Amino acid sequence: MGREYLKILCDHPFLRLEEVTGDSNVGRRVGEVVAEKHGDNLPDEVADLVVKPTNPKEVKCDLVFSPLPTEVAKDVESNFASFGHRVITDASPNRMNPTVPLIVPEINPDDLEMVKEQSFGDTKGWIAATPNCSAVGVAMVLAPLRDLGIRRVFVTTMQSVSGAGYPGVPSIDIIDNVIPYIRGEEEKIASECNKILGFTRSPVPFAVTATRVPVTYGHTAVIHAEFRDKVSVGEAVERLEEFRGLPQKLRLPSAPEKPIELCVEEQEPQPRHGRDAGKVPGMAVQVGRVRRGVDERSIQMVCVSNNLIRGGAGVAVLTAELAVFKGLV
Amino acid sequence: MGREYLKILCDHPFLRLEEVTGDSNVGRRVGEVVAEKHGDNLPDEVADLVVKPTNPKEVKCDLVFSPLPTEVAKDVESNFASFGHRVITDASPNRMNPTVPLIVPEINPDDLEMVKEQSFGDTKGWIAATPNCSAVGVAMVLAPLRDLGIRRVFVTTMQSVSGAGYPGVPSIDIIDNVIPYIRGEEEKIASECNKILGFTRSPVPFAVTATRVPVTYGHTAVIHAEFRDKVSVGEAVERLEEFRGLPQKLRLPSAPEKPIELCVEEQEPQPRHGRDAGKVPGMAVQVGRVRRGVDERSIQMVCVSNNLIRGGAGVAVLTAELAVFKGLV
Amino acid sequence: MGREYLKILCDHPFLRLEEVTGDSNVGRRVGEVVAEKHGDNLPDEVADLVVKPTNPKEVKCDLVFSPLPTEVAKDVESNFASFGHRVITDASPNRMNPTVPLIVPEINPDDLEMVKEQSFGDTKGWIAATPNCSAVGVAMVLAPLRDLGIRRVFVTTMQSVSGAGYPGVPSIDIIDNVIPYIRGEEEKIASECNKILGFTRSPVPFAVTATRVPVTYGHTAVIHAEFRDKVSVGEAVERLEEFRGLPQKLRLPSAPEKPIELCVEEQEPQPRHGRDAGKVPGMAVQVGRVRRGVDERSIQMVCVSNNLIRGGAGVAVLTAELAVFKGLV
Amino acid sequence: MGREYLKILCDHPFLRLEEVTGDSNVGRRVGEVVAEKHGDNLPDEVADLVVKPTNPKEVKCDLVFSPLPTEVAKDVESNFASFGHRVITDASPNRMNPTVPLIVPEINPDDLEMVKEQSFGDTKGWIAATPNCSAVGVAMVLAPLRDLGIRRVFVTTMQSVSGAGYPGVPSIDIIDNVIPYIRGEEEKIASECNKILGFTRSPVPFAVTATRVPVTYGHTAVIHAEFRDKVSVGEAVERLEEFRGLPQKLRLPSAPEKPIELCVEEQEPQPRHGRDAGKVPGMAVQVGRVRRGVDERSIQMVCVSNNLIRGGAGVAVLTAELAVFKGLV
Repeated sequence: MGREYLKILCDHPFLRLEEVTGDSNVGRRVGEVVAEKHGDNLPDEVADLVVKPTNPKEVKCDLVFSPLPTEVAKDVESNFASFGHRVITDASPNRMNPTVPLIVPEINPDDLEMVKEQSFGDTKGWIAATPNCSAVGVAMVLAPLRDLGIRRVFVTTMQSVSGAGYPGVPSIDIIDNVIPYIRGEEEKIASECNKILGFTRSPVPFAVTATRVPVTYGHTAVIHAEFRDKVSVGEAVERLEEFRGLPQKLRLPSAPEKPIELCVEEQEPQPRHGRDAGKVPGMAVQVGRVRRGVDERSIQMVCVSNNLIRGGAGVAVLTAELAVFKGLV
Repeated sequence: MGREYLKILCDHPFLRLEEVTGDSNVGRRVGEVVAEKHGDNLPDEVADLVVKPTNPKEVKCDLVFSPLPTEVAKDVESNFASFGHRVITDASPNRMNPTVPLIVPEINPDDLEMVKEQSFGDTKGWIAATPNCSAVGVAMVLAPLRDLGIRRVFVTTMQSVSGAGYPGVPSIDIIDNVIPYIRGEEEKIASECNKILGFTRSPVPFAVTATRVPVTYGHTAVIHAEFRDKVSVGEAVERLEEFRGLPQKLRLPSAPEKPIELCVEEQEPQPRHGRDAGKVPGMAVQVGRVRRGVDERSIQMVCVSNNLIRGGAGVAVLTAELAVFKGLV
Repeated sequence: MGREYLKILCDHPFLRLEEVTGDSNVGRRVGEVVAEKHGDNLPDEVADLVVKPTNPKEVKCDLVFSPLPTEVAKDVESNFASFGHRVITDASPNRMNPTVPLIVPEINPDDLEMVKEQSFGDTKGWIAATPNCSAVGVAMVLAPLRDLGIRRVFVTTMQSVSGAGYPGVPSIDIIDNVIPYIRGEEEKIASECNKILGFTRSPVPFAVTATRVPVTYGHTAVIHAEFRDKVSVGEAVERLEEFRGLPQKLRLPSAPEKPIELCVEEQEPQPRHGRDAGKVPGMAVQVGRVRRGVDERSIQMVCVSNNLIRGGAGVAVLTAELAVFKGLV
Repeated sequence: MGREYLKILCDHPFLRLEEVTGDSNVGRRVGEVVAEKHGDNLPDEVADLVVKPTNPKEVKCDLVFSPLPTEVAKDVESNFASFGHRVITDASPNRMNPTVPLIVPEINPDDLEMVKEQSFGDTKGWIAATPNCSAVGVAMVLAPLRDLGIRRVFVTTMQSVSGAGYPGVPSIDIIDNVIPYIRGEEEKIASECNKILGFTRSPVPFAVTATRVPVTYGHTAVIHAEFRDKVSVGEAVERLEEFRGLPQKLRLPSAPEKPIELCVEEQEPQPRHGRDAGKVPGMAVQVGRVRRGVDERSIQMVCVSNNLIRGGAGVAVLTAELAVFKGLV
C-alpha cells in the first residue's frame, strides 16, 4: 500500500512527498526497497528519499499518511497527532472512534470538520480516517440512494488478495479456490457504511458475507438494498449516474469526473476491466447490473472498486486535498 | 460431463454402461476420445466401447442419460422417449415442463412417480430431469429448513468454469477476474429451487446474482433465507446436520451417508476442500458459516457443491438408482 | 489484438486511424464492439468509426495493419497489396515468404527495403511482416549477442493465454495447470529468429519447448545460448544493457528509450511486473538472470515481453513509423 | 507435507503410524490441527493421535519420517539418530552429506545400504534422505537413459506453489504471473540428480532454471539431454516406457506398476492431468513430448511429477518399505 501512495504522490500538483518512514528498511533508498519487491521504477525525486524511522519528532511535514498495520496504527497515530501532526489514516483502529471523522470525500466531506473538535494537547494535530477497502465501494453506490430511505442491505463481497496486505493470503489457499470468510471484514463493512452514510443514530441492518477470490486487485460487491417505499430501477440508475460530490465541484486533482461509472453491458463490472477506472486510475467505482431486487421496494446491483486506490491511497490523498481546501492543513 | 458419467458408471454395482452415443466422434473408441481431451485413462470395458450415433432406433439399453447441449436436448430427448426409452436428463429444456419431474432424490423422491402420467405414444418411454448445477446445492441446504416456512431467499453464487461446459469460458476472460453475470442461471436457480422444494403453487421470491470465478470445479453459493417466524441458528444447524433422505434410508449406492456435511471451521466450506466430499466423491454438499441473518427471522450460510457430480452426473445416476428401486426401469 | 491497435493509434503523433474493417461487425460502431467484449472506452474519434467490410476496393488509407486470423490472412493480404495497399501484418502466413521482410525495427530495419523488390502488378502495394509474439522477445535479447557467434539456442517459453487470440484457451484447460505444447509455435520461434537475426544461410539450431501458463498477457522465455568462443557474463550484460537500434536513433514515437531493460533483482523479470515496460507501455523487453550457462561458452537468461504490444500491435506500428521514415509510405 | 504422510500412512499394509510430533500444536488432536488448515477429515485412528513434542527421548517407534523445515532439520535429525532412531528425511540439509544415501527406490535402491556405515554412537540409528521435489522427477526420467551416456542436461522447471511449503508463496506474487527464480532449487536439482544417478565422480553439467507458476501442486520440467553418441527417439521412448525398478519387482505397496507413464498425446503431460498418476496417486511420473533435441545426440521431453507424493511423502514411504525389505528396520 505504501507503494501506491508513492505512485500517486509522485506527480501531485500541490502535495509534495517529503519524507518516508518505516520500520524495517530505515536508511535504505525508497527506490531500492520498492524495486526489490515489485521490480518497478519510481521517479528519481521519490526513489532517492531515504527511509527514516517512524518517529514523530523526526518528521517535519505538514500532513502524514498512515498505511500502517492494524497492530501498531492506533498508538503511532495518536503519538504523531500529539506531536502536532495531521494524520490521515487508512488503518482500521481509529475509524469507529466517535471523535475521528471517517471520510469518503464525495459522500460526507463536511464530517472532516470534526477534526477541529479533537484535542491533542495544545497542538494542531488531528486524525482523520478513510474506510475499509470494501466498505468504500459499497458506501459509494449506496450514497446516491440514501434519500430513498434505505431499510436493509445484503452484501456479498468477492475481495482480491491485495486487500490482505503483504504477504497476505498464501497462494496455496486461494489458487483454484474461494475462501468464504475474511476475519473482521463483515463487521467493518456494516459499521463503517453506517458511519459514512450518517446512519449512526439508527443504523441500517446489514447482512454481509465477505469472501476472498483469486484476483490480484479490485474488489467486487454484490449488493441488494431494500427501501422504505417502492423504487424504480430507472430512478436508481439515474441517481447513480448523476452522482457528483464536493470533490467534483471543487475539481480536486484526484477526483474522478464521475465518481461512479455506470456499466450498461450486463456482464460488467468486472474487476479486471473496472479496477483502473477514472482519470486517476482506480478512483472511479463501477456499478452495473442495476435491477429489480426481491420485491418492488428493492434494488440489486454489482460494484467494482479499486481496493488499493479508491479503497486505500487514493481516497486518503483525496481527503488530504479536501483538508487543504478546507484550510485544515 | 459425459466423462463424469463414464467414471461413475465404470464401477457401478447394478447399472452397466452398455452404449455411448455422440455426434462428432462416431466410430471412435471412447477411451481414445477421452484421452485426447483429458489425458486420462478409463477401465477397458468402458474405454473399448465405440461411439454410436445418437439415434433412438439403434440404442438398446434400459435407461438413457442425457448430458446433451441445450440446443438439441429437448428434441432428442422427446424422440428417445417416443421410442420407448427412459431418459434421465441433466440438460435444461425439459426441467420446467410441468409433466417432467425435476429430481433431487434426497428432497423430492416421490415426484419421480410423475413419469407414469407421461405419455409417449404407447411406449414405456419417459423423461425425468435433474437440476441446474447451481440450483441443486441451494435446494439441498434449503430442504432441511423448508418446514420453518421460507419467505424470501437471497443468493449470490460463485460458479466454477466447468459449469459452462467445454470450451466454455475463455481463459482470457476469467484469469484474475470475476464475471458478475451468467446468462439464464439466475432465473433457473429461482424457478428450479421452487419446483424441487414443492413451492410451485406459491413460489418463494428469490433474488439471485450468479457470478463466475476462476475455479475449475465446485460451485459456491452464499445464501440468506428469511422465515415466517423467528428461527434460532442452533435449530438451523441441527436440521442441516441431521438431514437424511430416502436414498440414505435405501442405502442407494451413490447416496452419501450424509447428504449435507456441516463445516465448523469458519473459513469453510471452500470449493477446493469441499468439492469432492462424500463416499462417492462430489455427492455430499458442504455447508458452513451458518449464522444469524439480517434479523431474527433470517439465517445466512455458505454452501459448496460439486457441479459435475452432485450437480450433474452424480445426481442423475442417483435418480436412476431411485428409478430402479421404484420399479420404473 | 485489433483493440490494441486502436489503443496505440488513438494518440499517435502522425499515424491517423481512418478506417476499421471486419467480418462480423460490419456497420456497427467500433466503440460499441469493443465495449461489449472488454467493457472499456475509446476516445470518440476512434469509437465513432463504423466497421467496414474487409474489401480492398473500399479502403482508402495509405497503410493497412493486418491482425487477421491465420486462415484468411494470406489471401486477404495479397489481395490488398494487389490493389496498391501497403500492408503490415502480424499474421503468420507471409512471415517466412522469402520476398517478405520480417521486421523488428531495432534489429533488422534495413530488411524493410525488400518491399521495393515485391511486385503486385504495377501497384505501389507491398507486404511487410512482424514476428510471432514469442519470437520477437527471443530475437530481441539474442540480437545484442549476435556478434559473439551464436552456435545453438535452447528456449523454453511460458506463454500467456492472450497469445492464443479470442476465445483462445478454454479456462478449464489452464486454471491450475500448464500446457506443455503450443502447436506451430516452436517451429516459428526457431525459423523466425533465424530470419530476423540474418542467419538464413546457415541457420542456428534451436531446441524450443513452447508452453502455456495461466497468465493473461506477457510471455516469458528461458533462454540458453551457446557461442563460438568463451564469453563472459559481464560482456553479455553490457551488450544487452547498451543495445539501441535505429528507432532509438531516429526517436520514432513508439520506440522505447531502451529496447531492452536489464533487471538486476534475481527474481525478475516477471510477466506481471515487466509486461508494460517502456514509455509506450509494452514496447520494452525485460531481461534478467543473465548468468553463466552450462559451460564457459554459454549464457543463460530469462526475458519477458508483451505479446500484444512488442509482440503484436506495437511492433507493427513501430514498423509503420520506420516505413514512413524510409519514404516507403 | 505432514498431512500427506498422514494420508498415505492411514491405510498402509505394514507401516503403522504410531506417533506424531510437532512444535506448535503439542497436546492437540491431529485431526483438529489438519481440519483447521485444510478442512478435511482423517480416519479416527490417525485423527485421534495427540501431537507430542519433537523430542527423541519420548518417541518410541521404529522409524521416523522427517518433513521438517530446513532450518531445524539437520540438528533434529542427527539428534534422533543419536538416540537410535532410523530417520528418513525429505528435508534438504542432509541430502548431500556423503555418508547419507539419497534415495529414489527405483533408481538407486542399493545406496540405502550406506546407512550401515553411519555411526551414531553405538546405536542402531541412521539417516537416509529423499530428494528435492523437483530433482526426483528429473532423475526419474533420466534414469532409464543413463546407460546411453548422458553428457549435458538443460532443465527448466515450472514448479507449483505447494513446493514452497506453508504459507509459502504470497498469492499477490503469483496470480497471473511467473516467478523465474527459486532460491537454492537450481543447485539442488543439479547436485542431487548427479548423486542419485551415481555421477558423483564425474558430475554431468546441468543448466537449470527453476521457475514458479500458479499451479497448486504438480511440478513440470522441460528437459533437454545430450548423449555421448547418436540416440534415436524410438530407443529413448522404449527405455522410458519399459523402465522398472526394484520396488516394482518386490511389489512394494507404494510402488506404482509403471514408475514412468508415457503420454502419447502431444499436449501432455500437464500437472492437473498427471499429478495423481499411479495406483498410489502421485507416485507415477508422467513423461511426454519425447522428441529429437537440438541435434542427433540429444533428446528433449517434458515430465510432470507430484511434488508432495513422489517428491515428498510418497518417496519417503517407499524408501521405508525398501528399508524394511532390506532388513534395515
